[in-house]
Amino acid sequence: MRAVGVDLGGTKVLAAVVEADGTVGELRKIATPRTGVEELVSCLAGLIAELGPGDPVGVGVGVPGMVLEDGTVTRSPNLAGFDRPYPLGAELSRRLGRPVTIDNDVNAGALAEHRLGAGRGARDLLALFLGTGVGGGLILDGVLRRGPAGMAGEIGHLTVRPGGEPCGCGLRGHVEAYAGRAGLERRAREAHAAGRRTRLVELAGDAPMKSKVFAKALDRGDEVALELVADAADVVALAIGNVVTVLDVPLVVVGGGLGERLGRPFLDQVAASPHFGGFGPAGVELRMAERLDDAGVVGAAMLALDRS
Amino acid sequence: MRAVGVDLGGTKVLAAVVEADGTVGELRKIATPRTGVEELVSCLAGLIAELGPGDPVGVGVGVPGMVLEDGTVTRSPNLAGFDRPYPLGAELSRRLGRPVTIDNDVNAGALAEHRLGAGRGARDLLALFLGTGVGGGLILDGVLRRGPAGMAGEIGHLTVRPGGEPCGCGLRGHVEAYAGRAGLERRAREAHAAGRRTRLVELAGDAPMKSKVFAKALDRGDEVALELVADAADVVALAIGNVVTVLDVPLVVVGGGLGERLGRPFLDQVAASPHFGGFGPAGVELRMAERLDDAGVVGAAMLALDRS
Repeated sequence: MRAVGVDLGGTKVLAAVVEADGTVGELRKIATPRTGVEELVSCLAGLIAELGPGDPVGVGVGVPGMVLEDGTVTRSPNLAGFDRPYPLGAELSRRLGRPVTIDNDVNAGALAEHRLGAGRGARDLLALFLGTGVGGGLILDGVLRRGPAGMAGEIGHLTVRPGGEPCGCGLRGHVEAYAGRAGLERRAREAHAAGRRTRLVELAGDAPMKSKVFAKALDRGDEVALELVADAADVVALAIGNVVTVLDVPLVVVGGGLGERLGRPFLDQVAASPHFGGFGPAGVELRMAERLDDAGVVGAAMLALDRS
Repeated sequence: MRAVGVDLGGTKVLAAVVEADGTVGELRKIATPRTGVEELVSCLAGLIAELGPGDPVGVGVGVPGMVLEDGTVTRSPNLAGFDRPYPLGAELSRRLGRPVTIDNDVNAGALAEHRLGAGRGARDLLALFLGTGVGGGLILDGVLRRGPAGMAGEIGHLTVRPGGEPCGCGLRGHVEAYAGRAGLERRAREAHAAGRRTRLVELAGDAPMKSKVFAKALDRGDEVALELVADAADVVALAIGNVVTVLDVPLVVVGGGLGERLGRPFLDQVAASPHFGGFGPAGVELRMAERLDDAGVVGAAMLALDRS
């Protein structure tokens, strides 16, 4: 059993044939077409058709946006031409003559961790990805929770501090405003503008403040970095605590570019927060994600294998 | 198809035969035995054996406590003798020679609303019961979410205001501290002690401040009551918003003694809060619960019918 996995990102598309045991074949990569859905569908169809060998049972595509169960992408701000709902699954399936399963890229990442990563064998799992923003995916009783509007798992937009820091989505006090790279950068630059010295700004200059800048500043004991990351850990602990309180999920897997950089010491900070675990049973386990660069492609292939 | 439903409360036990369509037969009622598990099991077995006529397919029991999937009650502070885990399901089943399904009473109430109440036909549902405390139950893809430790659905213990008002559970800032009857009473008495006049204390005197006292004080425009209930609505909206953000649940049913007293005007206040609906899709629907006094018995019977 094997399937094609496609990780459709805002800047690049990755695709490969993936075996049911997670073995990834030759990885193809193209720049994401920027001129609209027609060109995108053609490029994807071409890319997938080139992949071989073997006889994949289906195609899975992870998309940075909201996706309905029927494969309609309802919103994807980072892809050109997706300013209104588009039946990407049906259209690709028609061109390829094969079943195509579409889902949110974060859901695909959660599935990769559940099937072949840090959550192998778990019945229930919360996956939390800290990157520019904060994404999440839920596996409940072995099944990915999508929700009727395809919007389940938006842990990054849990309100943890009502009326607090502004979030990229326009609302306030969300997890992402404290624990996403962009939110941390905003707060670091505010501290700098308010007169505090911080290596974060010294290291980043005017360029985007990358995850490794945070890691370096922490290594050197930078006070602003230490404060902001401690606050991020507290907010992540509160979010996990609330999810555990509602869902009784005993395992949390943390990944994403920033999550990987901050690593185990950050998880230990999260676990030490009084909010961690919430009202749920004692002993919620925190693990680092295991599928790193290939999580998108592997998870997308798992979407297809799950359906077949 | 019919089953026996037993609503095991801290002060009384209700039991009846319930048809699959929700028709409730003659209701039996006894005081809850207070001398330990042995007497309780004997009384329950006797009560159930007396019920008839017909041939019920099974027995369901709703318990005010934490229950594992195998029918073990792990914690039930309001029942005598349940200070450590007790296999109530197995023990009752042995005495009766029939399958017995045990679950949390709030889960049973949520099931009653889903199968035969305000949530009939819904695939996903959050049930929220405002009483002395605040309880919740989740139906996801048509199935009651229990969780591996039987602790799912504890909406009342979501942290909505970190470091805020003390909750009965010993932690702070939980929904229950603001929107449960006991939390509201505590806050009203504090306001009174701080010198504010309020009809809440005038009406209740030294007796427990019942739900109807809140309803009366609101009717008369009492300022403290208006403030506290508005704050409760805001907190409930935030809790619902967070659940919707994580789970994409489009329907919320509100019941419980206090919920019923506050009624539709309270739901309208909840829906008007900026926190309502969270990051989820627009159009989350709020409905009053329909199964009132018999929800416990009906839900318990549904537990048994679900298993058969």
